[in-house]
Amino acid sequence: MKKKIKVFAPASVTNVSCGFDVMGFAIDWPGDEIVLKIKDKPGISISKITGDNGKLPLDPVKNTAGASLIALAKHLGLKNGIEMEIHKKMALGSGLGSSAASAVASVFALNELLGKPLSRKELIPFALEGEKLTCGGTPHADNISACLMGGFVIVRSMNPIDVVNIKTPDKLYCTIVHPKLEINTADTRKILRKQILLADAVKQWGNVAGLIAGLTTGNYGLIGRSLQDVIVEPIRSILIPGFNKIKNTALEAGALGCSISGSGPSIFALSKSETIAKKAGDAMMEALNSIEVDGDLYISKINKQGPKVIS
Amino acid sequence: MKKKIKVFAPASVTNVSCGFDVMGFAIDWPGDEIVLKIKDKPGISISKITGDNGKLPLDPVKNTAGASLIALAKHLGLKNGIEMEIHKKMALGSGLGSSAASAVASVFALNELLGKPLSRKELIPFALEGEKLTCGGTPHADNISACLMGGFVIVRSMNPIDVVNIKTPDKLYCTIVHPKLEINTADTRKILRKQILLADAVKQWGNVAGLIAGLTTGNYGLIGRSLQDVIVEPIRSILIPGFNKIKNTALEAGALGCSISGSGPSIFALSKSETIAKKAGDAMMEALNSIEVDGDLYISKINKQGPKVIS
Repeated sequence: MKKKIKVFAPASVTNVSCGFDVMGFAIDWPGDEIVLKIKDKPGISISKITGDNGKLPLDPVKNTAGASLIALAKHLGLKNGIEMEIHKKMALGSGLGSSAASAVASVFALNELLGKPLSRKELIPFALEGEKLTCGGTPHADNISACLMGGFVIVRSMNPIDVVNIKTPDKLYCTIVHPKLEINTADTRKILRKQILLADAVKQWGNVAGLIAGLTTGNYGLIGRSLQDVIVEPIRSILIPGFNKIKNTALEAGALGCSISGSGPSIFALSKSETIAKKAGDAMMEALNSIEVDGDLYISKINKQGPKVIS
Repeated sequence: MKKKIKVFAPASVTNVSCGFDVMGFAIDWPGDEIVLKIKDKPGISISKITGDNGKLPLDPVKNTAGASLIALAKHLGLKNGIEMEIHKKMALGSGLGSSAASAVASVFALNELLGKPLSRKELIPFALEGEKLTCGGTPHADNISACLMGGFVIVRSMNPIDVVNIKTPDKLYCTIVHPKLEINTADTRKILRKQILLADAVKQWGNVAGLIAGLTTGNYGLIGRSLQDVIVEPIRSILIPGFNKIKNTALEAGALGCSISGSGPSIFALSKSETIAKKAGDAMMEALNSIEVDGDLYISKINKQGPKVIS
């Protein structure tokens, strides 16, 4: 048995405009790296965390990657111990599934070391154990599923968990602008209305139907028309300075659509060519900088692979 | 120019469980027939209506097929007059798009007679003029679109109208049981709640996403799991005697899913084989008859053609 592994798990965009709590997709970068070493002595420990500015706990029980790893090791009846290093390569609280990437990387890594006893789909509940720590309640599977399965996923149901991968056009590029502001996921959920208008819900599921049909058939016009969120974006965007301006510049640059990634503050746009994705990215960054906020820019295809072994 | 035409336009199932107000599909039968005769003398008249038990008005301005025809004739600048016969081959107020079938048949017939100046999609707004009379308010395009375009349609948006046809598996059979009770469409809309829980809406659009993905990829399991309506069916089904029993027998017989067609009282089920569709139909009829309600049974593939010229 291999005694040491280093893996990468990607960031992910969830909600995807109209698909609040039911859609997500993985991107090529950024992402997190995890190193696992199998030890003879039982017990799970985190020996090192980098890139977190000292914010993440070394206690495995309180750490998303740690809690996920503990749950999986217990399920698989692992007798050995594990020592884990976590290398955050993405900002915390960015709306890009940072905690999910670490949780996925840890369970993926252990499953690989042990010769893949579980399928990727079967790993979802274990990675969710880590998400429980972040959201302070019932965790959602959107980032976990997108990161773990790769590609574009639908989380049709959370109880029971029903996750489906769908085909997307080969040429579909994602631009992400991450304004350097931290947003607490729990807060962004609290500001949403518990009740919504049926008429708005109908608009939303019309767009959901259109988006899935557009993605599976490669109909870019339909994808663009369907990337509209009348429920969540109007509320959450208030927390993101310059959101409307940034969105408009992306659309003017030719992006198919633009909305909030996860609960923000990251903003994503989808485009049918890399040229447009870059043009949109430059325009979005310029709009962000014009209101004196710093940001990171990422341009990527939809990542169909999910987590991968580095060494 | 041909002076006389006889056309058929099919019934349609709308809402399709989770897809309230955004989905629909045409079936092979029942449906309505319309005969149009071009006259030299201007003016639109209805010379005969059969199969309506005397319920429909002969005044074209007050008749769904008449109002649609008037709107299209005006748009096309028709100088001639038209005499129309309407042969209802389906019950009124059945939840199978009876008024839509007549409206579609009339505009389709005139468009054919005039050498197809408009596409089927372009005919939608004219057929909607007839629907305005039935619903007593803003008409919805679901039955009209499914009937006119054929196949399975998504009405992504009503303003502007955005209707999309999606691919469905070749083997997908629809069973319809029409309990002989009349329900007023306007009333069935009034009993719905104007506000719904966001959590329920999320379940619904998860199912919408799953259903569209299942249909476009031929994933029967996913279609079945997605045919769930947590918003409208629980309320409207109260108006349909024996609904839960009929639904359960359909599912026990192996149907993928079962729900209300349109605003009811018709109940539809989808199955992956004709054998199951028939078995479900027999079981559903038996359940209906056991509560001493009479009904009609229809079994059909999804009708990909829409309206057609008979002679």
